[in-house]
Amino acid sequence: MTEKKRPLLITTGEPAGIGMDVVLNLAAEGKLQDFDRPIWVTADAKAMQVRADELVAAGVLKSIPSWHTINTDVNVDNFDVNLVEQISKQKINVDSAFILLNVPCAERVTGGQINIANSAMVAQQLDIAHQLAVNGTVAAIVTGPLQKSALIDAGIKLLDGTIFSGHTEFFMQQSGCEKVVMMLANQAMKVALVTTHLPLKDIPAAITADNVRQTVQIVIDDMREKFGLMQPRILVCGLNPHAGEGGHLGMEEIEIINPVLREFIDAGVNISESMPADTLFTTRHLANCDAVIAMYHDQGLPVLKSHGFGDTVNLTLGLPYIRTSVDHGTALDLAGRGGASATSLYQAIVMANEMADRSIVSGSIV
Amino acid sequence: MTEKKRPLLITTGEPAGIGMDVVLNLAAEGKLQDFDRPIWVTADAKAMQVRADELVAAGVLKSIPSWHTINTDVNVDNFDVNLVEQISKQKINVDSAFILLNVPCAERVTGGQINIANSAMVAQQLDIAHQLAVNGTVAAIVTGPLQKSALIDAGIKLLDGTIFSGHTEFFMQQSGCEKVVMMLANQAMKVALVTTHLPLKDIPAAITADNVRQTVQIVIDDMREKFGLMQPRILVCGLNPHAGEGGHLGMEEIEIINPVLREFIDAGVNISESMPADTLFTTRHLANCDAVIAMYHDQGLPVLKSHGFGDTVNLTLGLPYIRTSVDHGTALDLAGRGGASATSLYQAIVMANEMADRSIVSGSIV
Repeated sequence: MTEKKRPLLITTGEPAGIGMDVVLNLAAEGKLQDFDRPIWVTADAKAMQVRADELVAAGVLKSIPSWHTINTDVNVDNFDVNLVEQISKQKINVDSAFILLNVPCAERVTGGQINIANSAMVAQQLDIAHQLAVNGTVAAIVTGPLQKSALIDAGIKLLDGTIFSGHTEFFMQQSGCEKVVMMLANQAMKVALVTTHLPLKDIPAAITADNVRQTVQIVIDDMREKFGLMQPRILVCGLNPHAGEGGHLGMEEIEIINPVLREFIDAGVNISESMPADTLFTTRHLANCDAVIAMYHDQGLPVLKSHGFGDTVNLTLGLPYIRTSVDHGTALDLAGRGGASATSLYQAIVMANEMADRSIVSGSIV
Repeated sequence: MTEKKRPLLITTGEPAGIGMDVVLNLAAEGKLQDFDRPIWVTADAKAMQVRADELVAAGVLKSIPSWHTINTDVNVDNFDVNLVEQISKQKINVDSAFILLNVPCAERVTGGQINIANSAMVAQQLDIAHQLAVNGTVAAIVTGPLQKSALIDAGIKLLDGTIFSGHTEFFMQQSGCEKVVMMLANQAMKVALVTTHLPLKDIPAAITADNVRQTVQIVIDDMREKFGLMQPRILVCGLNPHAGEGGHLGMEEIEIINPVLREFIDAGVNISESMPADTLFTTRHLANCDAVIAMYHDQGLPVLKSHGFGDTVNLTLGLPYIRTSVDHGTALDLAGRGGASATSLYQAIVMANEMADRSIVSGSIV
């Protein structure tokens, strides 16, 4: 019998959304057993049972998959970090598709109906995930979708007093990170972004030497630490069309981007100077490249997603642990009714598993 | 014997570049006979012969293709518009791969060596092309590459006194067009741009209601007139990531773009409101779409070129005739030496031929 590696932890996120549905889909198809790691899932145990019954009634699931429930005593201030011991003492049926870490909702969950009374439970899932990842209990976190508007309405505050509205900000603050990098990945390519969700007019001001330098450093560090690539090959887009065409179409490449990139080139990093995006994203260049750094959202993501929308995985680089995410929203109208595709979740698990295997900080526990 | 349709005219552009080389490549492979139209080519006759000899010596061409030369009496002020009669009176060998319209260079041409004494001849080629297209002699123009820097150095002036620096400005001025639209096309998709070669920081100011409206109108008109699609299905990108996400990531969609698009929707045009670029460029949407309108260069072209760099064709919409273009430069280092790929020229001819066939203004002459 081979020793199992450390678990992967899936957070199902917003309970009114399809987070639980897609876990149940994969579990019913036996796909959670594709990995030589235990799969842990945070969710409300009662809501998960109801959702499974609904999906069977809707004809989506032929049978209810088997899982093993562990009750957790969680709230954001008093998280039971002995969860792993609790789990290890229990006799778990080998047929269990996953271990459910029960994070109770304040009120009864109805698929498709947002209830901000249950938003604290979403934060609690992330807190469990963060703590289990930081202390090394789980090898990686895979996050399901949450509903930003509900979190904002619920008004849950982060450590710095800002309102909790998304995974990335939550994990950053809990980890004390000043900067993280959003990377999207599929079979065709990996694309990291210097800026993410900014109006187009605000992008040029955000392309500072510090921002470019930090982004590049995080990509290099994480390609080494989390992908096991000691000499990652990185290509970088310019900000302007044709990468500024020698200054004729913008000066940021000459004044800001290329000087930073040359610092890395001089230090021996396998990285390009800024390249025209419409040249970079062709097979000839991508074939010899481990990661692309794009300056902004619509420069990098349309091309990536055009090569496989459902298979795209969202990664957060710069955190002290591996975090991948589905690339879809809560799809409230599909929750409990069927029709939600589990492809993105599966790919997020595949990526987390591969990274955990390659990571130079990963290991196995008994 | 089937009646031949109107000719396609190829301009070889900068004589020191690979424009002649790629025509010779296609001619030698017999590919110019793939079309049921005569192929006319503008070039310096002596330079074409020298280039053919060089390519045979370099082992690129196995034999020199056969062509038929017509001397033209051309200069920008006094173009011989009776060229078509001249040609029709001559007995042309059926084995001729193309008809060469001889546009003499002022000085001897050396492949790879720009000589601005020959830049006037580049303008003369375009003048011939424009006049033959406007008077209906040729069904479409296919342009080879020119060298912008040489043209600027040569200081040839356009009708409005500005310096001649590129095809599009030349054809616009000659045709009296205030606005044309750049479209790139390959087997995967067709993408038209609202703005083209602008620094990123200047894009938001260029996204005006007038500009969006004119671009959309030109795309609709040309999809009808030049592609024969009476009800083209058009999808439009927003300016900002997530198309502004309801105003959270920019207001241009709400304030400028969508109101213009709704004018067209209300008029019965099959066009979308602004969509997130990373959603639009996925198979699900592209499969039901004849043309995409992107707001700027790096939003639309990286994704298009990632699906087939060498097969991309550049079209100019809004001119009173069909014009397609290769999507590569002069590649001076390859001229006369071999190694230049003729794929882009071939695709540009294929596209021009298809458009000529579908165009509601196209016809056939004896």
